[in-house]
Amino acid sequence: MVPKTAVILAAGLGTRMGERPKGLLKVARREILYRTLTLLRRNGVGMFIIVTNERYAGLYHEFIEGHGLNAELVINPEPEKGNGHSLHLVKNHVSGRFVLVMGDHVYGEEFIREALRGSGLIADRKPRWTDVGEATKVRVKNGRVEEIGKSLDEWDAVDTGLFILDESIFEITEALEREQDGDYPLSEIVERAELPVTFLDGLPWIDVDTPSDLKMARRMLAKTAVKGTGDGFISRHLNRRISTEISYLLAEKVTPNQMTLITFALGVISAFLTLVSLPLAGILYQISSILDGVDGELARAQLRESRFGGYIDSLLDRYVDGAFLALLAYSTLREPLWYLTALLALLGSVMVSYSTERFKAAYGEDAYGSIPALRKLPGKRDERIFTTMLFLLYPAGASVRALFLLLAILTNLRVCLTSYLVSEKVS
Amino acid sequence: MVPKTAVILAAGLGTRMGERPKGLLKVARREILYRTLTLLRRNGVGMFIIVTNERYAGLYHEFIEGHGLNAELVINPEPEKGNGHSLHLVKNHVSGRFVLVMGDHVYGEEFIREALRGSGLIADRKPRWTDVGEATKVRVKNGRVEEIGKSLDEWDAVDTGLFILDESIFEITEALEREQDGDYPLSEIVERAELPVTFLDGLPWIDVDTPSDLKMARRMLAKTAVKGTGDGFISRHLNRRISTEISYLLAEKVTPNQMTLITFALGVISAFLTLVSLPLAGILYQISSILDGVDGELARAQLRESRFGGYIDSLLDRYVDGAFLALLAYSTLREPLWYLTALLALLGSVMVSYSTERFKAAYGEDAYGSIPALRKLPGKRDERIFTTMLFLLYPAGASVRALFLLLAILTNLRVCLTSYLVSEKVS
Repeated sequence: MVPKTAVILAAGLGTRMGERPKGLLKVARREILYRTLTLLRRNGVGMFIIVTNERYAGLYHEFIEGHGLNAELVINPEPEKGNGHSLHLVKNHVSGRFVLVMGDHVYGEEFIREALRGSGLIADRKPRWTDVGEATKVRVKNGRVEEIGKSLDEWDAVDTGLFILDESIFEITEALEREQDGDYPLSEIVERAELPVTFLDGLPWIDVDTPSDLKMARRMLAKTAVKGTGDGFISRHLNRRISTEISYLLAEKVTPNQMTLITFALGVISAFLTLVSLPLAGILYQISSILDGVDGELARAQLRESRFGGYIDSLLDRYVDGAFLALLAYSTLREPLWYLTALLALLGSVMVSYSTERFKAAYGEDAYGSIPALRKLPGKRDERIFTTMLFLLYPAGASVRALFLLLAILTNLRVCLTSYLVSEKVS
Repeated sequence: MVPKTAVILAAGLGTRMGERPKGLLKVARREILYRTLTLLRRNGVGMFIIVTNERYAGLYHEFIEGHGLNAELVINPEPEKGNGHSLHLVKNHVSGRFVLVMGDHVYGEEFIREALRGSGLIADRKPRWTDVGEATKVRVKNGRVEEIGKSLDEWDAVDTGLFILDESIFEITEALEREQDGDYPLSEIVERAELPVTFLDGLPWIDVDTPSDLKMARRMLAKTAVKGTGDGFISRHLNRRISTEISYLLAEKVTPNQMTLITFALGVISAFLTLVSLPLAGILYQISSILDGVDGELARAQLRESRFGGYIDSLLDRYVDGAFLALLAYSTLREPLWYLTALLALLGSVMVSYSTERFKAAYGEDAYGSIPALRKLPGKRDERIFTTMLFLLYPAGASVRALFLLLAILTNLRVCLTSYLVSEKVS
């Protein structure tokens, strides 16, 4: 069972990152804390307690109101003391199991989803995004924390700043309060509690301490924003590598909807370019295909996924493909038989998408998720567009005709195979 | 709350319908009882008790086993007595609320769904399918049964053979058992209990007593088998009137899958006919459009609805339309600009369906159900095909070109309006 409450520690006074509390810094147009709360909420956590200091209380209050969050503020009047005290302060605000999470860490959705299934300290043996030099390390013995600290010589994993605890932790904070006059770090609680350790390796999370961490966080969000169940060969090996770099560059500046429109416009321009220069048209078409991933990536990185965005994007893609093939045929073909081929290529090209979307409409499940064999069938959009570009690079009448013939066969065959795989799946 | 158990009275000895028990007669390839049980099950009733006589017990046992039904048999050793005794026999088999239903009535899905929300006697003030002369009538006073019988002079409604009762009914059967030595009709129980009456007017149900009732039941199932949320003007006013007649004629002979193939074959033939005779092609295309409703109607009438059937049917429709437009263009057009128009007409024609199916994929709801305004937009398949036929009846080069231009504009405009309506709906 996922805990229902999360405690966020955000009482630390900003130092290397300026006057604004770190939890309210934005990455990919969203406050760090908004990200954490949103991802926790999507995964079943509904109540939030934010521990902050007197100086930041107003800003955090504004933040909570502004986003309409179900969050409570707890003030730590002595933020200069160790952050263990901040945890102790929520003693009477939580019961049962709860999540404890650092307010200045940026997490990816996959990390949060998996972490909520763990218990104790969530630790990463292969941290991919965070700076290990600065990180808090843990040595683990028999599945429990043996030692924890920034300067351990020998260590097994890195502290991800997320914990799944229960109220028994307050027996330890109680003792530490007495012994150390309220000044002790969280790591001391963790060590004394000998918390169990759940390893979660290589998933997206990063501790933000410096402006360059913030940049790395943006990069992490862009690079892990690929959904891609329907990605073809070209998309996986070429388009996504470029599109995620573009998403990284645009993450703070461009909204997903703006990107959808830009991509559509480029696609339509590429279609009209067939009237002028086939190689240029092909290249721009391929560029628009690369950019076609960016709106979705920006949406996920900026936590702005919307079904309507996906809906419109999907319609516009079909129109770009249709317009490209129609204008390419218009500008190159003369004989009725080749036009017939072009008509069938256009039909098949839309039907490839129709056959998978209609599956989802009927069965409520993603076709590529339900029928993994579908992923291996050639003829997806990224592959078709890349092939189209190749055929248009050294255009001759014969190569354009060969392209239409290839597309007409490939796409319609793919639809036949899709319906066969669907029939196998459901029977 | 829908009752969880249903009691089916099927102890009557067949008279006018031959040796086979009436509940096991087939209408549209399904036993009457299979229909009732299936519809009840689809609407939340999970347990069944069938009261029958010694002679039929073996047949009913076979029926239950054959269909793997969750049903129990209760034997009435004295079926020649009034059917009130049959109800009394289940006294110790049910508790709380339960459905009581006659084994020889054929019900439509809509009737069962609504009836389960009622209580007491479900009565019909405007019976549409059953023979009122033969029916049991009820006079209602203050919402309760005042008098019930076949030969009432004044009556308010007709007994539909379905009741929502609770175990208190057995106090009355107990009394009647003593007073009348176990020989009393159900109507006597109903009258003495002064059951509440729920009116359900004009929905599909029929009491099957004679072979002509059976034919009427088939007709009822065919005529009420139209789902039709996406039906256009031509479908509602022309195609469905004919297709339901055809479904009535084929209900016992043809399966939905066979019908899908026949319709697809006719559509493809009509497409190739464009090479020979445009008027004939157009007429056959329209005939295939009428037949296109029949597979779905047969599926509903025969209780054989399948998502895969709908999936394949939808793909094949797109291919018939695509093939028709492609071959029509091939056989009539010469200039590139008109081919461009044809390419856009074909694109738009598939996109009309794509835009609504993609909506369902994204939102999990039928587009026409969620956005009623969509139903009024012209350009649905039935309307496009009818228009195509009209343009091909007196074919001249100009009329075919006008058709392509019209389709190119109408379909793509419709897709624009659809996405606009979707954006309005979800924002």
